[in-house]
Amino acid sequence: MNDRLKKQVEFILEIDKEKNIYRQTHLTNQGRNENDAEHAWHMAVMAYLLQEYANEPIDLAKTMVMCLIHDVVEIDAGDTYAYDTEGLKTQKAREDAAKERIYALLPEDQKVKLIALFDEFEKNLTPEARFAHAMDNLQPLLLNDSNNGSDWREHQVTAKQVYGRQSGTKDGSKLLYEFAKTLIEKNIRKGNILP
Amino acid sequence: MNDRLKKQVEFILEIDKEKNIYRQTHLTNQGRNENDAEHAWHMAVMAYLLQEYANEPIDLAKTMVMCLIHDVVEIDAGDTYAYDTEGLKTQKAREDAAKERIYALLPEDQKVKLIALFDEFEKNLTPEARFAHAMDNLQPLLLNDSNNGSDWREHQVTAKQVYGRQSGTKDGSKLLYEFAKTLIEKNIRKGNILP
Repeated sequence: MNDRLKKQVEFILEIDKEKNIYRQTHLTNQGRNENDAEHAWHMAVMAYLLQEYANEPIDLAKTMVMCLIHDVVEIDAGDTYAYDTEGLKTQKAREDAAKERIYALLPEDQKVKLIALFDEFEKNLTPEARFAHAMDNLQPLLLNDSNNGSDWREHQVTAKQVYGRQSGTKDGSKLLYEFAKTLIEKNIRKGNILP
Repeated sequence: MNDRLKKQVEFILEIDKEKNIYRQTHLTNQGRNENDAEHAWHMAVMAYLLQEYANEPIDLAKTMVMCLIHDVVEIDAGDTYAYDTEGLKTQKAREDAAKERIYALLPEDQKVKLIALFDEFEKNLTPEARFAHAMDNLQPLLLNDSNNGSDWREHQVTAKQVYGRQSGTKDGSKLLYEFAKTLIEKNIRKGNILP
């Protein structure tokens, strides 16, 4: 096997570990916790299906790759729950260290490309990054709403926290943000999200 | 919510069920069985990383979407193990019925597009379909090899069966087929695959 392919295969086997990084979100029908690989898959399919609602034209392949790889760093850094204020303070440092280790498994050119894509996602300054973030926000909202807000209730999440997280959705898609708002308001009325 | 978005959301929530369709393949490090959503995610990342080895130029976005959605039909039809000769006889009829029900949840234009992509994958006549099939073959081979062939041993799989399945890999990528051959030969020598 040539050295380049060897490195690519090593990375492909390493990211298999994402399938064991579990999130706070539960699958539909009150299922088990979702893992990072499943979340990324769902986001990428959503990016394809919902691209028509992006505020600006997006490069679909780039957006999908961003969706697919944005959580690779959690193999080392773990999942940080969107409403975990303590964890959020150290998240960036943990994820930066992970990024350096994991992407370094790839051939140099692909390492550079994937770190650039990950950084672009994190900085959130391009149409693709903004739309990928909208998917990252909307995907767990849909699952949680389908489960009558059980994740919000369990963590006693407030409307301010949910709106804080979803505020970025409008930068990717005004229409999907309006839709997210209707789901949030419904769950506030039901008492699933604290007012 | 407008009717179009309502249909898209219904489809997005429906395909969440792929996360509960388990395959025969086990995760690396002798992990649990893998599910369809994880497999599709892994295939799409591989399509991005390994596209340079495709025999012919491919449209990356199209190939990734094919990888991401090719197993949606298994929500109704279940996973058919690559070496289950009885199951393989009824696979097409079961999957065709599933295709009609599940993609019909989408708005008409997206239903037509996704069914066309799924059919293109199944017919395997385009560069994108051939490369997506190479990913579909290679991904479980990598996991199984990393587990010292435990899935092959459990099912007493023969070299003829493995080569039968992997033969399509060369239509997508001659180089990746040569690589697959080295893994197969190694596992025959180790007694993990019956000669």
